[in-house]
Parts: sequence; structure tokens; C-alpha cells
Amino acid sequence: MQTPALIRKKREGFALSKQEIYEFVEGYTRGEIPDYQASALLMAIFFRGMDVQETVDLTEAMVLSGRVLDLSGLPQPKVDKHSTGGVGDKTSLIVAPAAAAVGLAVPMISGRGLGHTGGTLDKLESIPGFNTRLTLSEFRRVLATCGLGLIGQTDDLAPADRKLYALRDVTATVESLPLLCSSILSKKLAEGIDALVLDVKTGSGAFMKTIEDSRALGRRMVAIGTACGKRISALITDMNQPLGRAIGNALEVIECLETLKGQGPPDLMEVSRALASHMFVLGGVEGTLEDARARFDSVISSGKALDKFAQCIAEQGGDPRVVEDYSQMPAALDLESVVAPRDGYVAALEAETLGLAAVTLGAGRDRLDSIVDPAVGLVLEKKIGDQVRAGERCCLIRYNDRTRLARAIGMVRSAITVSEERAVAPLLVRETITSEA
Amino acid sequence: MQTPALIRKKREGFALSKQEIYEFVEGYTRGEIPDYQASALLMAIFFRGMDVQETVDLTEAMVLSGRVLDLSGLPQPKVDKHSTGGVGDKTSLIVAPAAAAVGLAVPMISGRGLGHTGGTLDKLESIPGFNTRLTLSEFRRVLATCGLGLIGQTDDLAPADRKLYALRDVTATVESLPLLCSSILSKKLAEGIDALVLDVKTGSGAFMKTIEDSRALGRRMVAIGTACGKRISALITDMNQPLGRAIGNALEVIECLETLKGQGPPDLMEVSRALASHMFVLGGVEGTLEDARARFDSVISSGKALDKFAQCIAEQGGDPRVVEDYSQMPAALDLESVVAPRDGYVAALEAETLGLAAVTLGAGRDRLDSIVDPAVGLVLEKKIGDQVRAGERCCLIRYNDRTRLARAIGMVRSAITVSEERAVAPLLVRETITSEA
Repeated sequence: MQTPALIRKKREGFALSKQEIYEFVEGYTRGEIPDYQASALLMAIFFRGMDVQETVDLTEAMVLSGRVLDLSGLPQPKVDKHSTGGVGDKTSLIVAPAAAAVGLAVPMISGRGLGHTGGTLDKLESIPGFNTRLTLSEFRRVLATCGLGLIGQTDDLAPADRKLYALRDVTATVESLPLLCSSILSKKLAEGIDALVLDVKTGSGAFMKTIEDSRALGRRMVAIGTACGKRISALITDMNQPLGRAIGNALEVIECLETLKGQGPPDLMEVSRALASHMFVLGGVEGTLEDARARFDSVISSGKALDKFAQCIAEQGGDPRVVEDYSQMPAALDLESVVAPRDGYVAALEAETLGLAAVTLGAGRDRLDSIVDPAVGLVLEKKIGDQVRAGERCCLIRYNDRTRLARAIGMVRSAITVSEERAVAPLLVRETITSEA
Repeated sequence: MQTPALIRKKREGFALSKQEIYEFVEGYTRGEIPDYQASALLMAIFFRGMDVQETVDLTEAMVLSGRVLDLSGLPQPKVDKHSTGGVGDKTSLIVAPAAAAVGLAVPMISGRGLGHTGGTLDKLESIPGFNTRLTLSEFRRVLATCGLGLIGQTDDLAPADRKLYALRDVTATVESLPLLCSSILSKKLAEGIDALVLDVKTGSGAFMKTIEDSRALGRRMVAIGTACGKRISALITDMNQPLGRAIGNALEVIECLETLKGQGPPDLMEVSRALASHMFVLGGVEGTLEDARARFDSVISSGKALDKFAQCIAEQGGDPRVVEDYSQMPAALDLESVVAPRDGYVAALEAETLGLAAVTLGAGRDRLDSIVDPAVGLVLEKKIGDQVRAGERCCLIRYNDRTRLARAIGMVRSAITVSEERAVAPLLVRETITSEA
């Protein structure tokens, strides 16, 4: 079928056939179909949607546009976790070692932060020496050695998704359920996994602001993943305030290390436990979520999850001393406090604004080519529901560049609401969607 | 506004401001906004539409993307006619000379044929020596001398429309009311006209297949044209069968010459009279349509319209002897007949199929770079409603390339339906839309 006829077919609301979808993905990846036709089709998909079969076909065509990691040499079940992105969202560095510690293999390929949300790669690269750019054969070796590997996207896995994602980003076609689902899943399926736990963040700091949108994405993801032959569950978790206390790369790594030692903030611990226990069940190492939660707690208290992370850091060229000696991590030179304006309770901690405040300090990117300062960031000493007194510190700012400070302080202040009435911390795990549901 | 934000705004159904539309058109024309963003915006416009003010802004921005013909030196009112395209649709070569003969100036810039519909330029170029590629100053001189000029699109008039039209053609975004209106009108407004008569073809052989779609286009065109400060009327005319008898470039020119001599087929004469009389009224040379129709008949019977066409041919380098001596026109070497399969009445003459049959013979283009044979084509000796006997000729095929003949014959046969019941010829002028309506 000629490309204009294909675009017209979708524009008129018809489902595309598997062959049409494959021809489009292959033609676009090879550069035979130009960007301007692809973007018109993407916008038509935005308006007309795609049914489950079309989305499955699109996902699989994108997987087959490149290599698929062959992990058949590893005896363990291969399980991964993916988050739709949030502020202070650092669970990957906790659940991946925990899953490896219970005998799963976690071939985690992550992205960088852009806008107000952080990226796992940026966090990892704050560890001195940590190399996220392994070749696929090095990655396989690390996985075989310690059961987890943490790298960035490579050119040869799902190249169609990388090309389409870049196009969607500049043509206002990101927010389309079938395009979101196929993009996330194609990257993950190219890892050669058996099962996936999806963390759909919901709330003011998330990509999906409402529970309805989050539920729609979660349900669609579970349907598509299941149709692709994978075991998959989706958890809808809160992103109305940042997760944990730390925002900023080295600060978040340290918070993860604390959590792996059983000393992390309770919200981070709870969400990590929920995600990890679903990974354990989908991976087949535990039969029930209750057993899986207990198992998670045991690999934390025994230190086995921490050991796995230390092993992974060493295998990927990082300095494993950071695990015990946080002074090996980059640290910002200067500190500043943001205090409560009056007595009361923290009622709101606007995650998006706090994420952007961290970006202002240099912790993230406002452009693709921004340079990230691994040391800077925020530490939230109060969370929603906490009681505060006027003048008491709510947030510690760690900065290196004074010229950026004033703006960041203003943003942090505007993000914190203190009210007289006692506020309740939001429910952390809102819903769970499984393929049985 | 950044282009992705602009696309998103339209995608979400908001009206774009004049400034946003101008920035887009200017940025796209200069090549600063890439095709892939333009095509995403076009598809969003396809789904969300544009209101009258947005369409006016888009039209005027496209006009201002290039030069506007300055015809202020000509004393006559400047009037043009535009057709949405049909098969055998040759009224331009009749109404333009007629309008010039009553004292109007007709600066007609036309296109080439593509697909099943013919193009005025291809017809004109079948006249030996006729030059449709005048410079704008030559065009102005021809207009000053004889009151009409007939040329093709130039690079400097409405370049934004040319660029956007080419993009729409390959991204399935042609069929959008605001995009259609702004494309047609921007080209016409760049001619420096005061008034425009639009011929919206309706029926199986037309771009708009239903009366509802045709009416919507006509109404929108009249609203936009009026808002742009022009006098404009739209006629909805039949395209369920070809107009007149001839399909093919030289054959159509000869049919126009016959019509200018008062000997044309009645349907072509009627539609030409309707269009011309609206041009006369909008141009202010007649007060009522009744007077205008009589005036049209008088410039035909007096030979003044024919003289104007002969003068224009001579001014544009063509051989004016063709007016009296059709043997000066290219002629196909061979003839073939398609006869009625049985006694009865012609019930259908499918215009699109007949147009494609003519293209098969070489009369038109199936690709942008096809070479047109000016001599070949079809002559319909029977039209809808005519009585026929089995074996009687319905269509004469004039061809040069025997290898194309069999396919064309099959198409012509399939396009002709003969039924026992008497069929009624379709009403020619279905509706008239004026800005007063």
C-alpha cells in the first residue's frame, strides 16, 4: 500500500493490517518513508487510536526493527520494571538489585531525564566510574555474573522506536495511548524479558495527571503486553508529591543505598516493596504477593539486595566503596534552607515544580544537550501530612552555582503549601492491574 | 510560540491566533519549520478544523508569502473563475474570453491535470505555440492588451500554498475544508482580483461526491472570500457525467471554439453561461443575472468572445489560425468506436472512469512527470438520457498508441450504462451560493 493511502486509511478510522504496520515501520526505519508522512500518520493515530491488535503489531514491528537481546543462555527468569516517570522516582536502583537477589535476571535498559522528571541513567552516572554504555555482549556478561545490568538505550535495540519517539516529541504526538504503549513495550521486549512490572505514576507531577488516564494506560499496557506473550502487571502509584526525600542524582543514589540498608523513607520503601513483590510473583520465585513482600523485606534486612547493587556497580566499572562511604559520591559545595512560612501541616509538595527547581540547580535537563551536575538537588525534610513550625526547615537545597539559586528557592517556596488543617499523605499504591483482572 | 506547542494547541481543538498562523506560514515557507511539523499540524487541522477567522488568516498569510500581482494599472474590474475540477470541464476557455469581451479583466492562473481530471494549462498547450509560462510582466502586458491572460502557477505567487499543497498531497491531508479553501483562495487572491466565481463540481466524477460536501465547500469559500474583502459566488454544478462531449486536450479546445461560435453542446453552453453571468454581475458590468445571461449570449452570437480568445492566443504566442482551421490542432492518427450493447437509454456515463480512460490513452497524468499527448481522447456521442440502439456508437476514441487502446476501451465500456427505462439528464446548475444568501 502506498503511504498516503495508509495514512488516509487510519485517518478515516480503519484498523491497519499487520502487513501495513510492518511495511510502515520497516520503511520508516530504513528512511524510505520520510518523517513528514510518519508524523501525519502519528497524528491520525492520535485522533483515531489503534485497537489492541494494531498496537501489538506496532509493538512487535518496532521490536523487530532491530536486534532482540538473546538471554536464553541465562537460566533465570528475566524480569524488568518500567516507570512512566516521576520526581524522586528512584525505585529502579532498589527493585533491580532486590530481584537479582532472589534469583531473577534484570536486564534493565533505561533513559535519561528530560524536563521535570529524572532518569535512571543520570542517577547511575553520578556513581564515580559507573559505565552505562556497555556493549550488548558486555551487558550479557554483567547479567550472567550478578543477575542485573543497568545500561542506556543502544542503537541496535528497537531503532524504530527511537526514531519515532524523537519525531513524536517535536510533533505533539506523544500523548497517544497506543503510541505510548508500543514505545514502552518495544524497548522492553527488545531486552528479551519474560515479565514486566509497570509503574504508572499518577498525579500532578506525573505524565498522567488523572487516575482515569493512568488506569487507561495501565490497562492497555497489560492487554498489549499479555497479547505479546509476556507476563505483565501495572501498579498505579502516587506522584502528587516526590517519592522519597531526595531529588537530584547523587542524593537519590545515596537515598537508594539507605533504603537497601533498611533505612530509607517509608514511602520509597513501600512503593519499592510493591513493585519488587510483583516482579517476584511474575518471575515465579514466589507464589503470592504476601510471600513476595516478606521475601523483599528479607533481602533488604539480610543485605543481599545491597550486595547485588555493590556487585553490579563493580561489574560496570563503578567504585563500590560508595556503598559504605557516601563521601565517595559527588557532593555540592553549598547548602541553603527553605523554611516553613508558618505553623501548620504540609498540605502540598508540588512534584513538577520541585523537579523543575532541581533542573534549575543543574540536576536535570531542560534541553537534550544540557549538562547535568550530579551533585546538586533537593532534600525534602518534610512531606505531605508532616507538622511544621514557622521557620522550621522543610527543604535543604544543595547547590554549586549561586547564580541559579534564587530562582530555585522561589520555585521550592511556591511548591510547598503549609495549611492549618492536618493534611493526609496520599495513598501510595492506588491500583493494581493484572492480566487476570 | 514553539511549533510543537502550536501543533498541540490545534490538536486540542483551540483556534490559532493570527500571529501564530502567520509565524507558521512564514517559518514553513522559509524552511525554518520542517515538513514533519507542518504535516502533523495539517493532520490536526484535518481533524479539528479551523473557524472562518483562522481560515482567513491562513489564506492571507499564504497570499503574503509571495508577491501579489499589482493590476491597479488596469481600469477594468478584475474577475476570475475557479473550478474544483472535473472531466471535460473546459468552461475556462469560454468564460474568460466572454468576460474579457464585456470589459472585464481576467488574470487566470491555472493548474495542470492530475488523476482523472484535466487541467486548463494542458488544454491551452495543445494549441501550437501557446505559451503558458509568461513572466508576470508579460502577463500584465497581455492582460492590458486583450483583457485576459492564461498562464500557469509561478514560483513567486503564493509559494506557501505550493509548498503546503505538495505536502498535503503526500500526507493524506488534502480533504480538509479550511485547507482547501485557503489553498484555492490564496492562489486567486495573489492574482490581484476583485471578484471570483467558484464552480464547485458535485457528483461521482468530482472531488466532492455529495451535494452536502459541495455545499459546505461553497458556503465556506463564499464566507472566507467575503471576509477577505472579495466579491464571490459559488455555483454547484453537476459532475455525474463529463461536461460537454470532448475529453482530451486538443479535442476540448476545439469544443470550446465551437461553443464560442454558438455551436457547442447544450450542457457546456448552459454551465458556461451560468458562470459567466455571475462573473459579469460580480464585475459590475450587469446589474441582474438575467441581463448578464443575455449579455453572454450576445458576445457569443456577435463573435466578440471568440475574437477575444483568438487575440489572447496570438498574444501568448499561439497560432490563431486554429480558431478557424481545426486541422492546425494536433490530431490522433487512429479512431475506435465503443457502441451501445443494446437498445435503450444512456443511464450513466461515469465521469471518473472516462477521465481515467482518457489518461490511459495519454491525455492526462497518472504521475506528476507523465508526458501528455495533446491529441488523444474521447468524444461522447451520447450523453445521459439519449436514446441508443444496439451497435450504435456512443463514444469515439481517438488514440495514437495502440498498446494503450484495449485498456481504454474496457474502461469506456464499463463507464457506460444503457438501461431500458428512460433516464433523465442531471440538473446542471444545482445551487448558487452568494454572500448575500
